[in-house]
Amino acid sequence: MPANYISNNGLLTTMWKKLSKFSSTMSGPRTPEPAPDGQGASPPGSQDEDMADGTQHSHRMLSFSDALLSIIATVMILPVTHTEISPEQEFDKSVQKLLATRIAVYLMTFLIVTAAWAAHTRLFQVVGKIDDTLALLNLACMMTITFLPFTFSLMVAFPEVPLGILLFCVCVMAVGAVQPASPAGADRGLRLPLPPPAEPPDRALGPPGPLPAAHRGHHSPGPGAVLGCGRLLPLLLPSGPREPPARSLEIFTFDLHEPLSKERVEAFSDGVYAIVATLLILDICEDNVPDSKDVKEKFHGSLVAALGASGPHFLAYFGSFATVGLLWFAHHSLFLHIRKATQPMGLLNTLSLAFVGGLPLAYQQTSAFARRPHDELESVRVSCAIIFFASIFQFAIWTTALLQEGETLQPSARFGGREHAFMFAKLVLYPCASLLAFACSCVLSRFSTAIFHAMQIAVPFAFLVSRLLVRLALAGLRGLRGLARPAPGAADDAQSPLLPAPC
Amino acid sequence: MPANYISNNGLLTTMWKKLSKFSSTMSGPRTPEPAPDGQGASPPGSQDEDMADGTQHSHRMLSFSDALLSIIATVMILPVTHTEISPEQEFDKSVQKLLATRIAVYLMTFLIVTAAWAAHTRLFQVVGKIDDTLALLNLACMMTITFLPFTFSLMVAFPEVPLGILLFCVCVMAVGAVQPASPAGADRGLRLPLPPPAEPPDRALGPPGPLPAAHRGHHSPGPGAVLGCGRLLPLLLPSGPREPPARSLEIFTFDLHEPLSKERVEAFSDGVYAIVATLLILDICEDNVPDSKDVKEKFHGSLVAALGASGPHFLAYFGSFATVGLLWFAHHSLFLHIRKATQPMGLLNTLSLAFVGGLPLAYQQTSAFARRPHDELESVRVSCAIIFFASIFQFAIWTTALLQEGETLQPSARFGGREHAFMFAKLVLYPCASLLAFACSCVLSRFSTAIFHAMQIAVPFAFLVSRLLVRLALAGLRGLRGLARPAPGAADDAQSPLLPAPC
Repeated sequence: MPANYISNNGLLTTMWKKLSKFSSTMSGPRTPEPAPDGQGASPPGSQDEDMADGTQHSHRMLSFSDALLSIIATVMILPVTHTEISPEQEFDKSVQKLLATRIAVYLMTFLIVTAAWAAHTRLFQVVGKIDDTLALLNLACMMTITFLPFTFSLMVAFPEVPLGILLFCVCVMAVGAVQPASPAGADRGLRLPLPPPAEPPDRALGPPGPLPAAHRGHHSPGPGAVLGCGRLLPLLLPSGPREPPARSLEIFTFDLHEPLSKERVEAFSDGVYAIVATLLILDICEDNVPDSKDVKEKFHGSLVAALGASGPHFLAYFGSFATVGLLWFAHHSLFLHIRKATQPMGLLNTLSLAFVGGLPLAYQQTSAFARRPHDELESVRVSCAIIFFASIFQFAIWTTALLQEGETLQPSARFGGREHAFMFAKLVLYPCASLLAFACSCVLSRFSTAIFHAMQIAVPFAFLVSRLLVRLALAGLRGLRGLARPAPGAADDAQSPLLPAPC
Repeated sequence: MPANYISNNGLLTTMWKKLSKFSSTMSGPRTPEPAPDGQGASPPGSQDEDMADGTQHSHRMLSFSDALLSIIATVMILPVTHTEISPEQEFDKSVQKLLATRIAVYLMTFLIVTAAWAAHTRLFQVVGKIDDTLALLNLACMMTITFLPFTFSLMVAFPEVPLGILLFCVCVMAVGAVQPASPAGADRGLRLPLPPPAEPPDRALGPPGPLPAAHRGHHSPGPGAVLGCGRLLPLLLPSGPREPPARSLEIFTFDLHEPLSKERVEAFSDGVYAIVATLLILDICEDNVPDSKDVKEKFHGSLVAALGASGPHFLAYFGSFATVGLLWFAHHSLFLHIRKATQPMGLLNTLSLAFVGGLPLAYQQTSAFARRPHDELESVRVSCAIIFFASIFQFAIWTTALLQEGETLQPSARFGGREHAFMFAKLVLYPCASLLAFACSCVLSRFSTAIFHAMQIAVPFAFLVSRLLVRLALAGLRGLRGLARPAPGAADDAQSPLLPAPC
């Protein structure tokens, strides 16, 4: 709603000040730095000052956006898991083709929505504060993004009809238009003598869709380029609009390499893990409450027998939840040690999350085939592969972080640090366990889905027991050392990371 | 895993120090206060110190729990929305009974899960830090809570079979056992000479299920009572375990009246809004991508016609998203002005969210009946009622907050403050609009679902336009005043809250 601002006097000056307020660089939304002109991000205590000029911290809006986007990214696994394969039907070509298409749609939408999320994150790393109009524009943007999965699957289902492609492009363009409109709405009329920025040469990784959205945000004449160099704004602003164009272009190119906000990476990942864990219970709540007629007719009124019939479902659910939970736990431990999420780490995280999103498929596969010995092992192998990839990409994040450990890791977790060995053990747990289960399913003829799920459920307990054993062993060692040296206090720091310091 | 700690020397002292670490009182997880013994919550910069003794900030685990719990609370609306009413079938008694049962199940599970969430919140308002064992125990607790909706609907479906009730009670008790086990696991072996705390007289509001869970947490001998008075722990701890029992009992009773952490109320509400907004698109993505066979046979290969056939669905989706989005926006604005969420406000918020969770039902109703003129107006009225209650409870939160405005509101939003009128206008918008739509559906014979959805979509625009008009009018007024007085700078503060200060 740019017209609101036209009625003010001293338009240019006002705009610059407004922009400076929106563009206070914030690494984390909770730790605002006071902008140099004294009007920008205020200290956390003085919320009233923000209210006075109608701006608010963007923190909660960003959490809400993260929650929405993570759900949307994971939605398209539902058509995959709900692909019905009747027990009589063979797992034939047509079903395979349908399933493959749907999996491809899921992966692509996941990447597209994640790219939109990354663009959104970059935008709001620059825009520190919002007002009501921005909040509503953001909601409009979210609504458009919710339509991306639908238009994309339409495009895939009807590749020969241009309408699908058209709708998808309109959707991407609308997202692109709304996102930069958010901050640009505040500063229309501002014209900087900028040449159109050259295409940065190294954006080839992401899908072609919404990355241009972020890019277009930077393209829009003037404001975009200003946003691109948000890092420099607080330095430049007090002296007014006299920014050298070449400089801003350079910084804009650099901005795409900036690490993503660690907080938002965590929030988005949390959302994906949470929705994956609960997609499983959705199905159980809908399908596995027995019908009272069925209980009377098929099970002679015995509810226990009726529940027993869907016992494999429950076992599979508990196994999957344990796996999702422990993968989240590994992710949580990993990000405790990470200070910054660089671009390759963000990409690896996206890939890991995409496989995590595939876990409901693994669940459905294993529980659908639970009673059929022939296909059973197939489905166990699919599950193992999905878990393996989800966890190996987590491990890759860790490896990538180690490559630049000075920049990305907390000191205690660096190579040779106290936490290093423990973190390594946590991250290596699932790749090893899934490989083991895969090998079992190939070698042992009596391996079954039930055993597989029991293994899944056993992993957290095995983890806890191993912790306990290591701890006891170390305590025993310390006791022995204590016999030799009566005051072992100073030696505690050198101990294994598995043992919490005994305070 | 209490056994880990047995091997340490000086057990009691160690336990007290550990407990002091877990029990640093934190109003918000991000602003830790250093505990008096210098070992409690460390300042944000020194994350390495936490790592050294194996503890972590609980912030991310709480966000994840909030996300999970809000999804689980909203899950049971799915059986309601998926109740199939075939177009031939009349809306007869049996369908009505089924629907009523399912709605009751939804409302009860929502309240039960919310109560479990409140217990979880209270617990972790006292427990400031976690370690790996606590994180895993918390995941186990979440897994048990995901089973509450299932066991509850089993109980309702088979009221005469004791198994359903048994399972539900086991589930509630397991949640109750896991939740206090989390902090108590760290301090078993600690015995304080405490009498069993008396039942607080005024917990009659919540459902009978999980509130005892929180309560049992405080019941466990010694540690529970210590946790209950977490507010006092930092003061008491340096002098060791010599707490007067009567005092801790008194504080425990007081603790149930403590306001809930505002941050977690926001996170939980965000989760509910996000899942409600996306439940709608789930259905569209699954059901409304036309089948290529159908398109060829029914629509002569015209994709546009096929999409047009589900046009009402899209209109309904956009309308519902606009409503959910704007309700979230009102909630967001409301909580910007709130400093503390007292217990009545928390209850009103839960009720508001329960109706928000009913919005997918409203959507499904209006879109299912879109082509049938007779029942159409019925479903519009149902939608209006749901929206009315969702928004009127938000308004009630505001009113309740005004009653204790000194304690609960930011100064600018108190009665007569700058923001008061504007907030009032925002919160009154939806009750008025839904009443208007209800009246229209009763009076106007040509009113239809299409018009209703168009109204829903128009509301945000109307809101923006009214903002713009008020702003322009005020700017005009200011211009006039400016003609009289050339320097209006000092008068800005007294202006209407609708106008952001022109800096």
